Amino acid sequence: MPQPQPARPGDPLARVDTPALILDLDALDRNIAEMAAFGSRQRIAIRPHAKTHKSPDIALLQIAAGAVGQCCQKVSEAEVLVAGGIGDVLVSNEIIGTAKLDRLAALARRARIGSCVDHRDGVDALASAARRANVTIDVLVEIDVGQRRCGVAPGEAAVALARHVQAAPSLRFRGLQAYHGRAQHLRTHAERREAIASAVAAVKTTHLALKSAGIDCPTVSGAGTGTFDLEAASGVYTELQPGSYVFMDADYARNSGADGKPFTRFGHALFVLATVMSTPEAGRAVVDAGHKVLSVDSGMPILRDHAGAVYQRPADEHGVLDLTACNHRPGLGDQVLIIPGHCDPTVNLHDWYVGVRGLAGRNPHVEAIWPVAARGAHF
Amino acid sequence: MPQPQPARPGDPLARVDTPALILDLDALDRNIAEMAAFGSRQRIAIRPHAKTHKSPDIALLQIAAGAVGQCCQKVSEAEVLVAGGIGDVLVSNEIIGTAKLDRLAALARRARIGSCVDHRDGVDALASAARRANVTIDVLVEIDVGQRRCGVAPGEAAVALARHVQAAPSLRFRGLQAYHGRAQHLRTHAERREAIASAVAAVKTTHLALKSAGIDCPTVSGAGTGTFDLEAASGVYTELQPGSYVFMDADYARNSGADGKPFTRFGHALFVLATVMSTPEAGRAVVDAGHKVLSVDSGMPILRDHAGAVYQRPADEHGVLDLTACNHRPGLGDQVLIIPGHCDPTVNLHDWYVGVRGLAGRNPHVEAIWPVAARGAHF
Repeated sequence: MPQPQPARPGDPLARVDTPALILDLDALDRNIAEMAAFGSRQRIAIRPHAKTHKSPDIALLQIAAGAVGQCCQKVSEAEVLVAGGIGDVLVSNEIIGTAKLDRLAALARRARIGSCVDHRDGVDALASAARRANVTIDVLVEIDVGQRRCGVAPGEAAVALARHVQAAPSLRFRGLQAYHGRAQHLRTHAERREAIASAVAAVKTTHLALKSAGIDCPTVSGAGTGTFDLEAASGVYTELQPGSYVFMDADYARNSGADGKPFTRFGHALFVLATVMSTPEAGRAVVDAGHKVLSVDSGMPILRDHAGAVYQRPADEHGVLDLTACNHRPGLGDQVLIIPGHCDPTVNLHDWYVGVRGLAGRNPHVEAIWPVAARGAHF
Repeated sequence: MPQPQPARPGDPLARVDTPALILDLDALDRNIAEMAAFGSRQRIAIRPHAKTHKSPDIALLQIAAGAVGQCCQKVSEAEVLVAGGIGDVLVSNEIIGTAKLDRLAALARRARIGSCVDHRDGVDALASAARRANVTIDVLVEIDVGQRRCGVAPGEAAVALARHVQAAPSLRFRGLQAYHGRAQHLRTHAERREAIASAVAAVKTTHLALKSAGIDCPTVSGAGTGTFDLEAASGVYTELQPGSYVFMDADYARNSGADGKPFTRFGHALFVLATVMSTPEAGRAVVDAGHKVLSVDSGMPILRDHAGAVYQRPADEHGVLDLTACNHRPGLGDQVLIIPGHCDPTVNLHDWYVGVRGLAGRNPHVEAIWPVAARGAHF
């Protein structure tokens, strides 16, 4: 059922069938090295989020550069990671349902597995599954640090739940999950700093309350591509969970950095290669890439080249390029490289990464084809 | 690489793993019968759009009810349809690129294949591919009837392109593709009537110009779920291409019908079954269904049950339910049925349809599991 590979190693870029997910391997290498160097300098663990790439191939590159393991959101993603050779996986999410929990526990026979909890019933069900499988599972109590999604309130509620975890012999309380997702996409560094300051305060309150209760809290995990420098500087986070930095989408590029300039610490490594399939009038071109290959939930994608061209009016299989302000206009049959608005759900639409070397040069060519191995792994 | 099936035939609904794509087979049957009866009554051909369902199983049900074939947008979709036993497929889209055209021509050895054109270069490339494969391909000239996407201008431009098609021995000019996509989602019937009146005028102009040029035009194909009654009443369209009617999404349900009342001619047959995975406070529940299983490009999904519950703030793997106005609140671990905002891209996120009987009754159970066979078929 997966679609055939859209290219073969050695092919020039122009021979890749479209629409295809292109990975600039040079930019990918630089992004992975940059985050690894940051973690090393700041002496903080990097646990990249596999929800972004869904690929053991990329996970192994991150781990080779120093990452301590991976996190993911779904048991089925964890299964793909463990099958691909990842030995330490945190499901940074609450897992509900006996069948899913039994699958999670089975994984703990083959790898170090952690999961998050925010309810006593969830703890009990996780403990039972671990007991049935005769394994021990690491547990982080998720606290709500401003996201208003999952998680218990900081402070005493978290302590009570941590105690409940400690009472289960098949579980090992490891600390706190404290991710502020909403903060990642606040546009200025000052706004993000304020949001993370509030998250850090919530973590400190909880940390102190745990200490008063005599509960050791070795791990505080969280952060994303928009704020990881702030959590790292806090002194309380021990582990960062950035995902998007490996690819950098158009939305993260709309953030500004600490210096007020556009956030360019990481380079765009992910593109959708599309073909112009209709040029009905001079200022308009239609490409073969719409909702089914590009996620627009975080705003429109942008074109890497063809300055002035604007991607608009996406439909299921089409996107319209407004070329009225574009001097270097693509013609019928020409390929264009599109930077997705939001990388994670875009990746999930594709079966294959087409890994390209020399994308910035004159002779870009396909080096590797990797499966998006956990594509559709939403169970 | 496809994910394991989330259920088995005979399972009660409660045993289906989530998030899963649920198909109400009773509602599906009714929707297919309703459109087939309309076509029969109006003596107009129904050629349902497989871009919606991507499933030969559903295509065969439509054809058994009287549909003349299928249309689709991509060569790779056509390949899946032909492999699944569909003998008449129109690619209602321009196909650009030699590799794709050769695959399209190869299909014409096994089924009746049509395609659309809006440029002389496209006609030439299609003709060459058909000649190389020693086949004949049906061709519709696409005219722009208000969509401002692909298509030549109505009238003389269409005649010139039709002549160019006729000059190619490997192609058979069959008529016009005249789809007004934007009109489908205009909220009132009066707005849609006005838009389609303008499309019909463009078709009539072109039809007359073809006749004056001595060119026979046996087919005018177009229309969708929002407007098919208007094209059928026009007297010039010979074939309707509705897709969404089989499933009915939340967005089409926001249209009003000719009587001013909500458009309920077709019933909701497609749902995402999700599980409440967190209940951090009384008025909030979090479900395990976000961007990666539900497309929100046409607005938010809605809950089938739990009146007053509002799905909001979708993230990649989460959706938040605001339950403050809901009296019958789902609890931790409960399943909810979600009506997608937009069915086509939602279907494309899933590997499996879980076909359920008795969904409106007390003992809904799984009758069939069908692959979303053309999921990811965007080539």
